[in-house]
Amino acid sequence: MLAMVYDGPGRRSWRSVPEPVIQQGTDAIVRVDAVTICGTDLHILKGDVPEVEPGRVLGHEAVGTVTEVGPAVQTLSVGDRVLVSCISACGACRYCRQGQYGQCLGGGGWILGHLIDGTQAEYVRVPFADNSTHKVPEGVSDEQMIVLADILPTSYEVGVLAGAVSPGDVVAIVGAGPIGLAAVLTAKLYSPSHIVVIDVADARLDAARRFGADTVVNSSTRSARDVIDELTGGLGADVAMEAVGLPETFEESVALVRPGGHVANIGVHGAPATLHLEQIWIKNLTITTGLVDTHSTPTLIRLVANHQLDTAAMITHRFPMDEFDTAYDVFGDAAHSGALKVLLTASP
Amino acid sequence: MLAMVYDGPGRRSWRSVPEPVIQQGTDAIVRVDAVTICGTDLHILKGDVPEVEPGRVLGHEAVGTVTEVGPAVQTLSVGDRVLVSCISACGACRYCRQGQYGQCLGGGGWILGHLIDGTQAEYVRVPFADNSTHKVPEGVSDEQMIVLADILPTSYEVGVLAGAVSPGDVVAIVGAGPIGLAAVLTAKLYSPSHIVVIDVADARLDAARRFGADTVVNSSTRSARDVIDELTGGLGADVAMEAVGLPETFEESVALVRPGGHVANIGVHGAPATLHLEQIWIKNLTITTGLVDTHSTPTLIRLVANHQLDTAAMITHRFPMDEFDTAYDVFGDAAHSGALKVLLTASP
Repeated sequence: MLAMVYDGPGRRSWRSVPEPVIQQGTDAIVRVDAVTICGTDLHILKGDVPEVEPGRVLGHEAVGTVTEVGPAVQTLSVGDRVLVSCISACGACRYCRQGQYGQCLGGGGWILGHLIDGTQAEYVRVPFADNSTHKVPEGVSDEQMIVLADILPTSYEVGVLAGAVSPGDVVAIVGAGPIGLAAVLTAKLYSPSHIVVIDVADARLDAARRFGADTVVNSSTRSARDVIDELTGGLGADVAMEAVGLPETFEESVALVRPGGHVANIGVHGAPATLHLEQIWIKNLTITTGLVDTHSTPTLIRLVANHQLDTAAMITHRFPMDEFDTAYDVFGDAAHSGALKVLLTASP
Repeated sequence: MLAMVYDGPGRRSWRSVPEPVIQQGTDAIVRVDAVTICGTDLHILKGDVPEVEPGRVLGHEAVGTVTEVGPAVQTLSVGDRVLVSCISACGACRYCRQGQYGQCLGGGGWILGHLIDGTQAEYVRVPFADNSTHKVPEGVSDEQMIVLADILPTSYEVGVLAGAVSPGDVVAIVGAGPIGLAAVLTAKLYSPSHIVVIDVADARLDAARRFGADTVVNSSTRSARDVIDELTGGLGADVAMEAVGLPETFEESVALVRPGGHVANIGVHGAPATLHLEQIWIKNLTITTGLVDTHSTPTLIRLVANHQLDTAAMITHRFPMDEFDTAYDVFGDAAHSGALKVLLTASP
């Protein structure tokens, strides 16, 4: 089959690899009907995630059709249309039993396209298939579903829920990439009074407006803190979400919140940040970090099926799978292409 | 009257100052029967808290007797025996109405011995007296009560409650000074499985054992992480509390917790710390900071009255008020004197 293979830092190729086979009784094989590229894949290609070995098939998001199930799979059948979640879950360890699947100790967690071959391929082996997939409801399209594999639950759980967004809040979201935009979309579920999105790219800020931001701030030309101060009488935001993954955007997020406020870090970081404890020890802040657990995925699927979340709007570009190289180029150059999520579909 | 006056960095004197008078209708004047010294007072004397102006009477903890009330005071009468809390509260601002009195926007918060004259004196003016004092129940002594002015609610709210200590938890407490010991005492209310206290002074670790620590670690000779790993199968502590106020002890606290764990910073910090986001972005940590709100003080008073908290054990040294200078020397040299809290009482 064809797959997008990581060949070491800076090198990828869409090439032929062996088809996956059932290895454990709890495995399923899924034919990939739709797949996308994540910012994390770009991090891997830069060499930022050294656990990923050359030869690894990339990708941890897909919608597909079950073609084979291991003898221990209980809830899936051949022909089922499923979302392949970025998080696999053994279902039995301490963390899984607490719904913290992202921290699975039993061999799951974020493994697809990381520690085992991933979804950017014609077929993918999905371990712990009962707990690592979600059936796609009737009437929900691949486009609507695909962003539930990672970015929607990530922004919702690690941003909105961990940040405890509440009705009436002033919410600051630093970074208007796909994760920041998904945070706008899911924060609105909790009826904040005002969402301020901060970025340095006007095209992304325009997208943030379309997704529901009340105010956008290009921080290369205006002080975000000034804007927040105007909105809050100088107090600061109730919640700030970091959706970039840089020390300076994390530090800005901390500086934007009011006493008693929440800072939810969603970004993937490669370097330490400075925590100004000499300023914040007295401010009653709550700072959270996290990998998505996907405990919210069933809820998000219901919200999509019920037309309460317009997830398909995240897809800006579409390609057949055999143009995977072009799709990477377009996604990797989002500043010029305006790409949010790129969708790749199997040839019919 | 006599009072302990801050005369600028490094200088204090027990000397005569004017008696306080009612300034606002909500004020009360309290005769100080018992008072103590806080580590924060030592910070002030070092010049670390520049908001404190020379000439300021120090102290934010006392038990005393009401001698005069302003016309707007509703719940106190002359002769009432009261705890003077470290936090004054206007009771009317946004934060007070949410029980977050430490962040009071109406002129309260931590003001005693900070922005206005404090409790290390024969008399003290207490603003917003209805909301800034607590009546001492019958049968509860000054010694039992005095630590409820600050360190008990601080350790309980900012450490135990913010850290979400839960039954069965492995709790690491970094620092075995009065705040760390009060954290041991109040953490036990939630039935953790194991409390590990970490310090570099054996005398303080001995005190930690007496207060209920299950394991103590002198981190100058052993790795605290190794000890926690043995207890947790390599996972890390459920909760770590920072009770020192240094960048390195904060960073150690973060390094001690398991994925999904809590880091509760109680320490007063004068310098920034490094937050290793490149390690913890994926670990689902919750980090909290805070000044005490004292919303728990009524609960803690009931626990003391009901003999569920042995607070008097925190008092190691007793002096009459006219030996205030000696008391400061003893408390300031805790490493040698073994002082936890020093109690000063009014001359009969």
